[in-house]
Amino acid sequence: MARIPAHLRRTQCPRVAGREGSFAALFQLDLPGLFRRGYEDPYLVSCTDGVGTKLKVATLAGIHDTVGIDLVAMSINDALCTGAEPLFFLDYVAMGRDDPPLLESIVRGIANGCVESDCSLVGGETAILPDMYQEGDYDLAGFCVGVVERKRLIDGSHMEAGDVAIGLASSGLHSNGYSLVRKVVFEMGGLACTDTVAELDNRSVADILLTPTRLYARPLRRVLSRYRVKQVVHAISHITGGGIAENLGRVVPDHLQVEIRRDAWEVPGVFRWVQRLGSVEQKEMDRVFNMGIGMVLVVSQHFAASIRSQIADCGIETFDLGVVKPSAPSDERVVLV
Amino acid sequence: MARIPAHLRRTQCPRVAGREGSFAALFQLDLPGLFRRGYEDPYLVSCTDGVGTKLKVATLAGIHDTVGIDLVAMSINDALCTGAEPLFFLDYVAMGRDDPPLLESIVRGIANGCVESDCSLVGGETAILPDMYQEGDYDLAGFCVGVVERKRLIDGSHMEAGDVAIGLASSGLHSNGYSLVRKVVFEMGGLACTDTVAELDNRSVADILLTPTRLYARPLRRVLSRYRVKQVVHAISHITGGGIAENLGRVVPDHLQVEIRRDAWEVPGVFRWVQRLGSVEQKEMDRVFNMGIGMVLVVSQHFAASIRSQIADCGIETFDLGVVKPSAPSDERVVLV
Repeated sequence: MARIPAHLRRTQCPRVAGREGSFAALFQLDLPGLFRRGYEDPYLVSCTDGVGTKLKVATLAGIHDTVGIDLVAMSINDALCTGAEPLFFLDYVAMGRDDPPLLESIVRGIANGCVESDCSLVGGETAILPDMYQEGDYDLAGFCVGVVERKRLIDGSHMEAGDVAIGLASSGLHSNGYSLVRKVVFEMGGLACTDTVAELDNRSVADILLTPTRLYARPLRRVLSRYRVKQVVHAISHITGGGIAENLGRVVPDHLQVEIRRDAWEVPGVFRWVQRLGSVEQKEMDRVFNMGIGMVLVVSQHFAASIRSQIADCGIETFDLGVVKPSAPSDERVVLV
Repeated sequence: MARIPAHLRRTQCPRVAGREGSFAALFQLDLPGLFRRGYEDPYLVSCTDGVGTKLKVATLAGIHDTVGIDLVAMSINDALCTGAEPLFFLDYVAMGRDDPPLLESIVRGIANGCVESDCSLVGGETAILPDMYQEGDYDLAGFCVGVVERKRLIDGSHMEAGDVAIGLASSGLHSNGYSLVRKVVFEMGGLACTDTVAELDNRSVADILLTPTRLYARPLRRVLSRYRVKQVVHAISHITGGGIAENLGRVVPDHLQVEIRRDAWEVPGVFRWVQRLGSVEQKEMDRVFNMGIGMVLVVSQHFAASIRSQIADCGIETFDLGVVKPSAPSDERVVLV
């Protein structure tokens, strides 16, 4: 366990207080002195999530240092949807037997995800439960806390007709739909982790399926810190299970509808490959996967071009997905046309 | 899943904001208007923990509405050790198949624990992982966030010679040592969940082993809110795996030693029963179990009697365990004499 504290420390900002070995982690809400934020009415934002059966692929492939990034991404990308700045993260790792090298790999991934999100890994719990998990199996749960000033909270309520939906490219499958993916790739396709896929640049199946979920903390921090007074970002949606329509729909007010053009972006090869291998219907693909869009921002039309270029500066491709229109409450909140 | 939001709502105080179905939970750090706390330099306190193999006993007995209390207690009792006020809680439930009645039982217990701790259950995640958990099996992880004003942080640093260690009675085994307990009771003792134990008032094995971990939020809130200016509580220790010596030792400064008198309290019958059934050595009992003391407060000698009576008013028995003495760094931080 001696390698774990080192991983925690490399994620931690000066706001982390307290000592190792204490009963609880301590995080100073505001910064001292010069960098004081002076929160007026802070909301604490919290999320929890796991990685699901993507872990089974990791176990099958014997690659354990990327699922931690997925764990961090699943919670932090959710927290970002409120406009929050992620502050700290805790993890719960449950495994069938004490396996320090495995734990170290997992925590290394978690720490990497936290570093990339400017979020401090302040604590965690490792449970050894031999009667509950089979040899080599493990489960992960993550927990993230962020903060947002009340008047800067983003919840879709400022959305209006004429706003633009900007899609941020995903890195691949992210962490949803892995029951389907595993069935299609391993059972129906008869493939193994080490097989390569010609149409996907000869990458191995393991490499394709374990591509870590993209972390959107830095591009969002960049955009949100640019507009401290104006409310230009009206809604943020993390595209997970349920797909674009369901997840974006969660933040669209009853009197509006977002019309997404399918030709606004090219669906990445990995989704076409899964669809063909398993003869999966388009409707199911749309419902289970992100289809290449990991996050959607709904922004004032006037600022859309500038926001897209700020995100591009962070190395993430964006797409002009469509516009917000007036609508009746009985309509769908999101339509793909 | 329709029954879950009702359980969340009955735990939630007015500081819980946001809507159901949003990407993240929102909690207003300060109260508005009249009840404003006006935190000057708040520390966010966070903990995560699980319940361990006590869950296996719940599965064996088919009783699932108390392990949620254990889950809440394991995290919140840790958070309390910093002097924090618990604010909110999130849970992660992973199970082998979708089982709404089972989930409802689990969440009912979690909500009961939150209500009893004046802590809002603001969110959670349910993962259905058929390839990871056997039929009927499940795992739980809990996350708790609290807040403490920096100058009121309790970490043992104010402890001094002459201070008194007050023990707060546990409710029984709490949530540690269940691998040993299960081996002793079910394997060595050959007992079943429905068997009764004559020496423990004819209670059933299930009833004895599933007694929920005691929650100490209310007695601690009572004590800490009484002394808002003076620092009279110098250290708080939650007695979990490692027992009294190891857990209390975590908060004792290097130049002090706490001398605990074994005759200060009577070890409850459940521990004597487990010890005899499994012929467990005293040393192992002391290292694995709380032995009847769930929490230890180290306080100024002058206030000890008053603090004990405040805790007694909350219905929790207390014991005058011993005193703090000067010591060399090379000594044990805690000795049982």
